[in-house]
Amino acid sequence: MERGPHRRRSIARLLEGAVVGEQVVVTGWVKTSRFSKNVSFVHVFDGSTDKTVQVVLDEALALAYKAELGVGAAVRVQGEWAASPGGEQSVEIKAHEVQIVGASDPSTYPLQKKRTTLEHLRTIAHLRSRTNLHQAVVRARDAISWHIHRYFHEHGFRWIHTPIITGSDAEGAGELFEVRAGDKPEGFFGKRTFLTVSGQLEVECFAQSHTDVYTFGPTFRAENSNTARHAAEFWMIEPEMAFADLDDVIALAEDFVRTVTQRVMADLPGDFELFDKRCPECGAYRPKEACKECGFDGPGVVASLQAALAEPFARVTFHEAVAILQQVDRAWEYPVGPHESLQAEHERYLAEEHFGRPVFITNYPREQKAFYMRVDEGGETVSATDLLVPRIGEMIGGSQREERLDMLLEQMERHQVEQEELWWYLDLRRWGSTPHGGFGLGLERMVLWMTGVQNIRDVLPFPRTPGHAEF
Amino acid sequence: MERGPHRRRSIARLLEGAVVGEQVVVTGWVKTSRFSKNVSFVHVFDGSTDKTVQVVLDEALALAYKAELGVGAAVRVQGEWAASPGGEQSVEIKAHEVQIVGASDPSTYPLQKKRTTLEHLRTIAHLRSRTNLHQAVVRARDAISWHIHRYFHEHGFRWIHTPIITGSDAEGAGELFEVRAGDKPEGFFGKRTFLTVSGQLEVECFAQSHTDVYTFGPTFRAENSNTARHAAEFWMIEPEMAFADLDDVIALAEDFVRTVTQRVMADLPGDFELFDKRCPECGAYRPKEACKECGFDGPGVVASLQAALAEPFARVTFHEAVAILQQVDRAWEYPVGPHESLQAEHERYLAEEHFGRPVFITNYPREQKAFYMRVDEGGETVSATDLLVPRIGEMIGGSQREERLDMLLEQMERHQVEQEELWWYLDLRRWGSTPHGGFGLGLERMVLWMTGVQNIRDVLPFPRTPGHAEF
Repeated sequence: MERGPHRRRSIARLLEGAVVGEQVVVTGWVKTSRFSKNVSFVHVFDGSTDKTVQVVLDEALALAYKAELGVGAAVRVQGEWAASPGGEQSVEIKAHEVQIVGASDPSTYPLQKKRTTLEHLRTIAHLRSRTNLHQAVVRARDAISWHIHRYFHEHGFRWIHTPIITGSDAEGAGELFEVRAGDKPEGFFGKRTFLTVSGQLEVECFAQSHTDVYTFGPTFRAENSNTARHAAEFWMIEPEMAFADLDDVIALAEDFVRTVTQRVMADLPGDFELFDKRCPECGAYRPKEACKECGFDGPGVVASLQAALAEPFARVTFHEAVAILQQVDRAWEYPVGPHESLQAEHERYLAEEHFGRPVFITNYPREQKAFYMRVDEGGETVSATDLLVPRIGEMIGGSQREERLDMLLEQMERHQVEQEELWWYLDLRRWGSTPHGGFGLGLERMVLWMTGVQNIRDVLPFPRTPGHAEF
Repeated sequence: MERGPHRRRSIARLLEGAVVGEQVVVTGWVKTSRFSKNVSFVHVFDGSTDKTVQVVLDEALALAYKAELGVGAAVRVQGEWAASPGGEQSVEIKAHEVQIVGASDPSTYPLQKKRTTLEHLRTIAHLRSRTNLHQAVVRARDAISWHIHRYFHEHGFRWIHTPIITGSDAEGAGELFEVRAGDKPEGFFGKRTFLTVSGQLEVECFAQSHTDVYTFGPTFRAENSNTARHAAEFWMIEPEMAFADLDDVIALAEDFVRTVTQRVMADLPGDFELFDKRCPECGAYRPKEACKECGFDGPGVVASLQAALAEPFARVTFHEAVAILQQVDRAWEYPVGPHESLQAEHERYLAEEHFGRPVFITNYPREQKAFYMRVDEGGETVSATDLLVPRIGEMIGGSQREERLDMLLEQMERHQVEQEELWWYLDLRRWGSTPHGGFGLGLERMVLWMTGVQNIRDVLPFPRTPGHAEF
């Protein structure tokens, strides 16, 4: 099928390939329309690109359809692909035939021209993807997801669909949602079951058979936290490599973030122009100078992403990071020390101010991290790493895993993880065990980072947060 | 990073790119080893390909490592990439250095050489991906998933992550799993919530803003059915197109199945050789002639896939299909008639015997299909289609959706679907509604079709079925 499965071409394809003089068909929704005596214009979008197509109507067509060509109407236009004499676009369609596919009454249309707040748009999440910002966010989220798969495919990683319903709370990563069918909790599966918080333990099984593997799927936290960064349901990517140590994990994470970011930006120049017009601090639209809403006068999203990738990412140990923080003359809200956890304020300082670029923190104190992380020599720290990035803080958390059966058993005892439940995980260390490791990336964190959008509720199609499971 | 993020190359990459005489490193697990006085061989796999690498050991190395180089051991071998004088492979590694990375005691190793049944392997699903068939199934499942994304990406479809936790049972597709946190069912979200059975209704919102979109995610059915085709958790792909009718849906489905199938087969020739050795009826390994286990003497999987794609898929209406079935001289277990549903026996007959290739059945009786399907002229049927394929039966179910508000309201009333819950779905028909449609594909059905594996439990990494949520 030369033109794809449809008998029409998308606006993106028309802009790429249509020839001036050619008869074309465009379908989409009216974004704006302007009628005057001599010539009238309708701008149509179809979501395939940030660009609209300008449809030029002669007097007769304008007269016939003026009443119906308001914002939001679905239309089909047939006409000539023509050079555009002036204005912003170089090509346009001289309409020969207009069809109102689906009417839209401008007086009741929920997406009115006056700027609606992102908060309000969340209440009409079924329609908000027709607005400029959400049009772009949907494309960015898709492009990021695509390039993530592409990156792993190119590097020989196999996508493993680890289970969503799980019988264990092994990672102990916060509160779980329970899954049940009927009245008895143990009814369907013969045991209590939960929604997964991570596919890592399961995907490790496949690293021990296929070497390089990854997960890409939804994960869940029943935490009652109402922040701009947390949702009860979000998507995680978790690569896992056999015959790999912490250095390999870090090399993969950096190359992965770098490659995906560059490719996505290259794919969507128009959408990144839009993201770049928003203040990365408060989201207000701003000219190049300081933000009128919040006063922020730092770089826009695009410059900030370019700066993040300009140099190799930094790398320090947890104890080096603590020393850096202790030397700063600043009143931290949370204490800083070798036995204290790094808090968001510390993480942002390190990435944004001290290093001014993404930084891997490594070798965290053993008691701060999960049982499966490999214990370093000396027994005080583990081969863990977090990648902190400007504006976002932690974007990736990874580690080398404990491949030594005796040490893993000791770790499980320390962390009070039941051996009986993880008999299969222990088995991996009994036959052909290998040093291995990987990381977890929250997809939404990466979307927030790249788009400069502030709230996770605005980058999930239908966000699930405490009190919210609409649509 | 020229060689990918690791400091080693996979066997697949070595076979593609290593040069005879070059020093290489291979990591993986011992599949077989054979020791003799003059020269000893170890075959190593790493999951990147169906091929093993033959490692040649001199007397000293053989003597030093013989005891530890049993099946299942994880090894790292350094040596010279060399032409192989005889045998099945054209290249091999002359080992200079061997490292036992992770020992494996052959006497306790759970994957013994004598053929273990697929049923038994399900009880050790954490290890089974090291066996030949599961090695290949993992690669096939990954390749199918990758080519599905690639297909949609190439055709301009955007991947939408529709929610997994949902507040509605709108599609009414069988029993639901309930999701809760804490004691009260309404606790976390302020309402009862369930695991999704389909992202279709939600993804329709995005078709009305981005035209061509799709979902690819897990879906759930709490049905107590213990068949070889049903799992409680499985993955679905659901493309949805605006400005499209049933013909477009069918054109997309055929091109999609054809393209993905051909590309996957081209990517994994060695794995399809293995699949082709198994009887497509019972799974026993068989030579070219009739199966010794079940007597089946039809074509193998590869020939059957090639035959399926040799001609355009067939297409008949439901009523034409009923007429065909009524004319056959056969004692059907289930009745055949204009008001009866097609059963598996009918579907397989149509695809396997009557048409001998995939066939789209269209325009089903209105009462047999879901409320959102578009009512045909005359009001008796809907613009639905199922794609039936040989060996599998239904692989795809799709339809044009009802885009007319008044007709949709009538359909909801008929099907007793509550309007209040789907206010947002109705909204899509109020402003800029378009004819639109799409289909749903169960990923596992496609994996079963392509690999010839009989049971869905053998193509899911950790299958969830009644009574089973291990690992």
